[in-house]
Amino acid sequence: MNLRQLVRPHVRKIHAYVPGEQPKVRGLIKLNTNENPYPPSPKVLSAIRQAVDGRLRLYPNPAAQPLREKLAKLHGCAPENIIIGNGSDELLALATRGFVAQASSLHEAHTSPNQHSDDSKPSSVNSRLDTGGTPAPRSAATIQYFNPSYSLYPILADIQGAHKNPVPLNPDFSLPTINQLRRGKQWDFSAALTYITTPNAPSGRGYSTAELAKLCRATKGVVILDEAYVDFAKENALELALKHPHVLVSRTFSKAYSLCFQRIGYFIGHPEMISTLDRIRDSYNVNGLGQVGALATLGDLAYYRRNFKRIIATREKVSAQLTKLGFEVLPSSTNFIFAKPPKFPAEQWLAKLRDRKLLVRWFKYPETRNYIRVTIGTEKEMAKFVQVCGSLMKA
Amino acid sequence: MNLRQLVRPHVRKIHAYVPGEQPKVRGLIKLNTNENPYPPSPKVLSAIRQAVDGRLRLYPNPAAQPLREKLAKLHGCAPENIIIGNGSDELLALATRGFVAQASSLHEAHTSPNQHSDDSKPSSVNSRLDTGGTPAPRSAATIQYFNPSYSLYPILADIQGAHKNPVPLNPDFSLPTINQLRRGKQWDFSAALTYITTPNAPSGRGYSTAELAKLCRATKGVVILDEAYVDFAKENALELALKHPHVLVSRTFSKAYSLCFQRIGYFIGHPEMISTLDRIRDSYNVNGLGQVGALATLGDLAYYRRNFKRIIATREKVSAQLTKLGFEVLPSSTNFIFAKPPKFPAEQWLAKLRDRKLLVRWFKYPETRNYIRVTIGTEKEMAKFVQVCGSLMKA
Repeated sequence: MNLRQLVRPHVRKIHAYVPGEQPKVRGLIKLNTNENPYPPSPKVLSAIRQAVDGRLRLYPNPAAQPLREKLAKLHGCAPENIIIGNGSDELLALATRGFVAQASSLHEAHTSPNQHSDDSKPSSVNSRLDTGGTPAPRSAATIQYFNPSYSLYPILADIQGAHKNPVPLNPDFSLPTINQLRRGKQWDFSAALTYITTPNAPSGRGYSTAELAKLCRATKGVVILDEAYVDFAKENALELALKHPHVLVSRTFSKAYSLCFQRIGYFIGHPEMISTLDRIRDSYNVNGLGQVGALATLGDLAYYRRNFKRIIATREKVSAQLTKLGFEVLPSSTNFIFAKPPKFPAEQWLAKLRDRKLLVRWFKYPETRNYIRVTIGTEKEMAKFVQVCGSLMKA
Repeated sequence: MNLRQLVRPHVRKIHAYVPGEQPKVRGLIKLNTNENPYPPSPKVLSAIRQAVDGRLRLYPNPAAQPLREKLAKLHGCAPENIIIGNGSDELLALATRGFVAQASSLHEAHTSPNQHSDDSKPSSVNSRLDTGGTPAPRSAATIQYFNPSYSLYPILADIQGAHKNPVPLNPDFSLPTINQLRRGKQWDFSAALTYITTPNAPSGRGYSTAELAKLCRATKGVVILDEAYVDFAKENALELALKHPHVLVSRTFSKAYSLCFQRIGYFIGHPEMISTLDRIRDSYNVNGLGQVGALATLGDLAYYRRNFKRIIATREKVSAQLTKLGFEVLPSSTNFIFAKPPKFPAEQWLAKLRDRKLLVRWFKYPETRNYIRVTIGTEKEMAKFVQVCGSLMKA
């Protein structure tokens, strides 16, 4: 039996997302996956511990209803505006299945192996709203995102068998204006699904709600504003998800709320869009102790807001120190910094820092290969980091 | 803006899976969702509590590697034979995305709204292996299962936009033989994906490994043996997943191992099939405390095996008592019983029992509407259940 025949053609070619390393090396300072250096609030830990009893034998609330209700109060909307996911990654993937056609369902031929160059072709002429309601083939199967941004998006497109449309950010990682996008002819204003990481990762660059609003208004397909890092920024764009039915905002408890381990993310948006995702998710998609932890988190937001301030203060201090050492540090609206190091290529900095038990992240793509991405750790960890950078400069 | 246009045509029509009720009524005895009446082992609870600390800020192991390794030892296979899911439901859904084409990708027209009758057409002529390796359209997009079985399968097919092929079990819920299936002409021996709930739910009927082996050998597409209840049965079919590359066995920690709350399931199968699913899953799909709980469970299997014995003993006792009261009780290889009640229609029993704070499950389909499904609770709960049934018979 040829096992490959049992697997769908577009799935055979997929390379999985490679998450940042989770090494178990004693004494290693982990500044590579944007985790919060501070633990969850003592109240959260205590709430979870108290829930660890015979009730684990029971199914959790299938819709995470109490959490939806508490989040709705926080955000000034209705529980029907919110869906909870097994991390926001689950919801980002779910959106592809709800909103994006498979490319081969619209074309006779299977996508060619040399798909990438083909995918960069302008497709904005294929407006699915301009053709009287019939989705134009290419746009209905297109997933669009800026480059660089969260490296999961192209993989989600591959898994869905969709066309990818990666559109370059400006060289300083700012958002192109609508006029720039029109002139560039690559942006598909009717793409079935557009992901925008805001603030951007890996650059850390923040975007104003005003410029995001313009982009959302000009784009006719579904737009997901992925606000994984927004608690470290000056502005958030939640109002756009409550105003525009085709806009969804994605949030997570992982980074800002120190709950990576328990996988809780959520989307906010129009009830019809939320209900679409709700009907195609796994029926018990959110684990119970994660629900307990997230609920308790919302009961102690002051603790987390103090941590945001500390992390932002550390970020600014380290940015200044690195700049002094000769790094080109981009302004950050997140809990990490993106910096072009001096003296050695960025990839060598990765290795040299690792030798000194400091783990940072490096992305090999042309737009990012001259930078290292450094998660903001505790003050002590970052003092060590700056000190090691200084010694490497003198070495 | 017409929001429906933003949603994929086949997704607009989906009705979500309706899980059994999780009511919060004081004093209610919950015998409706096949949860284990006994709590997790004290060692498991203690292991989870001890893991609730600052580490929750970190991502969990993305492949649940330690759990895969420990399960591999238990089952006498390699970690590469195992994938862990956010409950087995996640993996059952993932399999549709890895192995089943979307119907509209193979046909010009969208499926008609009156899809069900169309889906019952014989399609066994469409062998995808008989046509020189090119998948025949209908079979490559077909999800097949016996009727009745786990009511999630048709919904997974709808979500994937696949054809459904529900094939009737024999009237006593036993498996049709290969000859019966050939004569019946409905079984698609080349369906892209076949789910077999074994032991069967909701009937509780167990199937022998010998008859499952024949069915697996005769069926050329992917076969998933869904063994959610197998710990309460006399036989399991794990050997078939390790022998036949196209066969996967699905297991869960939910029911037998009292861990519904934390969503841990797994598949066992050929490394290539497992790797296919691994590449298309969410990158951190299994929450950390669930991994901790499942690992600790495997360290205290004796505790759970004692509970299996207690539940089986209670099941046999209650079956005999209900038979005496006039119920037709089917033989069960699971932690529930399926019984045709006397005197009132089954739906009325559901309501009358609920009035007396006993919650059981009733399925409205033609094959099941004369039965109630009763999860085996503690000895005390089941004594109460039998007592109430007795009083309803006299009322």
